[in-house]
Amino acid sequence: MEVVCLDLEGVLVPEIWIAVAQKTKLDELKLTTRDISDYDELMNYRLKILDREKIHLGDIQAVIAGLEPLDGAAEFTAKLRSETQLIILSDTFEQFAAPLMKKLDWPTLFCNTLEVDNGGRIVGYRLRQQDGKRKAVESLRAMGLQVFAAGDSYNDVSMLKAAHAGMFFRAPEAIRKEYPHFPVADTHESLLQGIRGFIQSA
Amino acid sequence: MEVVCLDLEGVLVPEIWIAVAQKTKLDELKLTTRDISDYDELMNYRLKILDREKIHLGDIQAVIAGLEPLDGAAEFTAKLRSETQLIILSDTFEQFAAPLMKKLDWPTLFCNTLEVDNGGRIVGYRLRQQDGKRKAVESLRAMGLQVFAAGDSYNDVSMLKAAHAGMFFRAPEAIRKEYPHFPVADTHESLLQGIRGFIQSA
Repeated sequence: MEVVCLDLEGVLVPEIWIAVAQKTKLDELKLTTRDISDYDELMNYRLKILDREKIHLGDIQAVIAGLEPLDGAAEFTAKLRSETQLIILSDTFEQFAAPLMKKLDWPTLFCNTLEVDNGGRIVGYRLRQQDGKRKAVESLRAMGLQVFAAGDSYNDVSMLKAAHAGMFFRAPEAIRKEYPHFPVADTHESLLQGIRGFIQSA
Repeated sequence: MEVVCLDLEGVLVPEIWIAVAQKTKLDELKLTTRDISDYDELMNYRLKILDREKIHLGDIQAVIAGLEPLDGAAEFTAKLRSETQLIILSDTFEQFAAPLMKKLDWPTLFCNTLEVDNGGRIVGYRLRQQDGKRKAVESLRAMGLQVFAAGDSYNDVSMLKAAHAGMFFRAPEAIRKEYPHFPVADTHESLLQGIRGFIQSA
């Protein structure tokens, strides 16, 4: 039996923090792990800005509720789920993802969790675990499953390496060059073809 | 983050082999692991009968396509998936489950696989792994997830034991008595309440 592990942002939905930065007009929130490589440092920086601006979870959820999955993503995941098993592995937070998961008909998602106080203020976050995408793939393999993984950025590489097969999706040129042995799909249709090839050969 | 592991037959859908036995009027197919405790022996016995009666995969899928999820199961899983993550852990086969998974909007399912020849004859089967329900729960725990499990029969006990919390669903009296420390739900509504209590305390 096979399972497909997909990154969320950039593969199925837009980058959530970028959308929040645009809507709140806070360019400081546009920084990513490309700018601050330590994730914990980046998250604490983001939470400090939210706190300073008195932006609560509800405000961010309102922004996210206005987002749509990427063009074709809902049709792609619907087809995929009728042919194989899907688990989305993301570094986002369950409270952020929920409005978008609803628009994708609630696929299974493993991600992180925000700590929120009674007033809706985001006071911290809990990682599911360190290097959670790679470890999830390893655990799925330990279940006797054949694992295919796809993502668009550096934080997906360890998951692609741990899987039986992996593919980049719309990855930046630098990553494609650094890891030339991973095939690249630039449309959901070609990603689906790659997955079908994997299932047939599994 | 939490994940709920549910048994399939008896919890969300009817017992598939019983339905096949009724439709084909082959009482021999009604035997379960209660009658032949060795699963491999039971499956080989079933496959021999299918072969003798020239019943192919397509015939069985036609029977299964006529089945419906248990009353309220579709509403229950829809609610559950909007509140937490769901993975169905089953000893059935992906080829059997598919028509029923469609009626439940394609939740993630980990189960076994039939080996079928080009003519549609079922020639064997592949277990995902031995004791697959327990090992799946252990692997989900290794992903840093809080695991709740529910099922209706003896083959669910090891999964309930491995999870952070577990509940029987409409289990026979003998199992309830043998494992009195597991709470029992007899409706999807009370199972959902049990799961909500687990999430709140997690």
